[in-house]
Amino acid sequence: MKLSINQLKYLKSLQERKYRQKYHNFIVEGVKLAAEVLSSGSLQVEMVVAQAGWLEEHGHLLRNVETVVPVEAGELKKISLLTTPNQVLLVAKQPDLAFDKAAVSAGTSLFLDDVRDPGNMGTILRIADWFGVKWVFCSPDCVEVFNPKVVQASMGAFLRVKSLEISFEALKAQLPDLPVYGTVLDGASIFSEKPVKASIIAIGNESKGLSPGIQDCLTHRISIPKGEGGGAESLNAAVATGIVCAFFAAGT
Amino acid sequence: MKLSINQLKYLKSLQERKYRQKYHNFIVEGVKLAAEVLSSGSLQVEMVVAQAGWLEEHGHLLRNVETVVPVEAGELKKISLLTTPNQVLLVAKQPDLAFDKAAVSAGTSLFLDDVRDPGNMGTILRIADWFGVKWVFCSPDCVEVFNPKVVQASMGAFLRVKSLEISFEALKAQLPDLPVYGTVLDGASIFSEKPVKASIIAIGNESKGLSPGIQDCLTHRISIPKGEGGGAESLNAAVATGIVCAFFAAGT
Repeated sequence: MKLSINQLKYLKSLQERKYRQKYHNFIVEGVKLAAEVLSSGSLQVEMVVAQAGWLEEHGHLLRNVETVVPVEAGELKKISLLTTPNQVLLVAKQPDLAFDKAAVSAGTSLFLDDVRDPGNMGTILRIADWFGVKWVFCSPDCVEVFNPKVVQASMGAFLRVKSLEISFEALKAQLPDLPVYGTVLDGASIFSEKPVKASIIAIGNESKGLSPGIQDCLTHRISIPKGEGGGAESLNAAVATGIVCAFFAAGT
Repeated sequence: MKLSINQLKYLKSLQERKYRQKYHNFIVEGVKLAAEVLSSGSLQVEMVVAQAGWLEEHGHLLRNVETVVPVEAGELKKISLLTTPNQVLLVAKQPDLAFDKAAVSAGTSLFLDDVRDPGNMGTILRIADWFGVKWVFCSPDCVEVFNPKVVQASMGAFLRVKSLEISFEALKAQLPDLPVYGTVLDGASIFSEKPVKASIIAIGNESKGLSPGIQDCLTHRISIPKGEGGGAESLNAAVATGIVCAFFAAGT
């Protein structure tokens, strides 16, 4: 079996953000991730393109899929973005999320300010997933959560963590009283803070840190202290996120 | 000015591990990193290939460089591994490090077991640099510390953090009494541990974790607890390293 020319065109178009936005969907690749999406049942899957062997093994997961296309490995290679060969690729609808003020007010959320690297974004979603952070808000200039590289790096976190594109100002207007933590160079050591669970942790851009407008709105200026004799200028954005989330988990 | 055919061949060969080992050197690219290497004075620099503008500005850093080759941007592109254009590339000698038993016995060191991803390796070196971890030991199957992608991701940490390739058995034979911490699924929560400063933190492979032989040698089996409602299967290896190092820094 082969993909039709139109299917091939359509699948290739989804490598671009504008078409993912137009069709409101995204691509998931690889045996583990595809099985996770299908068995979670939380996303509508419109198309599965897979090798016959994979389809035989996973037939029970395909009940609600609109289109299933069995293909040869060579055909998959044409549409794959992975460098190593894989057996399955699927197209899932992006979830429709509504901002849930009560839920956000009750827990710890992340706000990402201009996080550009897909690997960092995916790793941050995975961190949120690990620590039970339910909401990750992304400024409009962040890399898109449904970018294929983000999807791969997030290891399925997009199934459990809710992400919304929203400006900091709009978020702040919704929740004016929620404490906002942010890492800055001269902040108080997180080692000595007793964090407030119901709050937002703001994470800055990889090279520029938090933008001045957001820094002005922080209620808690925090920092991760360097060790004795430490020489690095900064930590990677995802690593810093992991450390702050761990201290929140330990202290709240 | 142009690179000679032999220079071009030589520089390209250094993209491969076997030639880096033969010549005992490695490549550093980019304005910031090159300036950092040259001004630190801690590594012998054998060759600088750069655009005229960069050389004019940085002439004072070139006193001890054996060979300086001014080139056009197009020429740099031929030997560059970066996707974005840069102005300078240099070849530095790998440092000659001897295992310093007394120094290692006194502080916190990392042992990396089969860490394969260059981005993770570079990020881990950067974490070590931030927290003042002086020694990072790497099992022989780790990605090489002088791999160009590791060098870029480490952000200059290779200038301050000492890394040595050594098997866990050999390290353990040298320091049989030093506590060894390692993250395992059923370990004690790091949130409730009081860490011992003079120790080794063992970090496992990205997908397999710590190998059974090393798990058997752990004196402290630790884990990073998942948050309430957390769903991820695991954390990224570099993120986990960052969190453990932060708790050591906070607690010792």
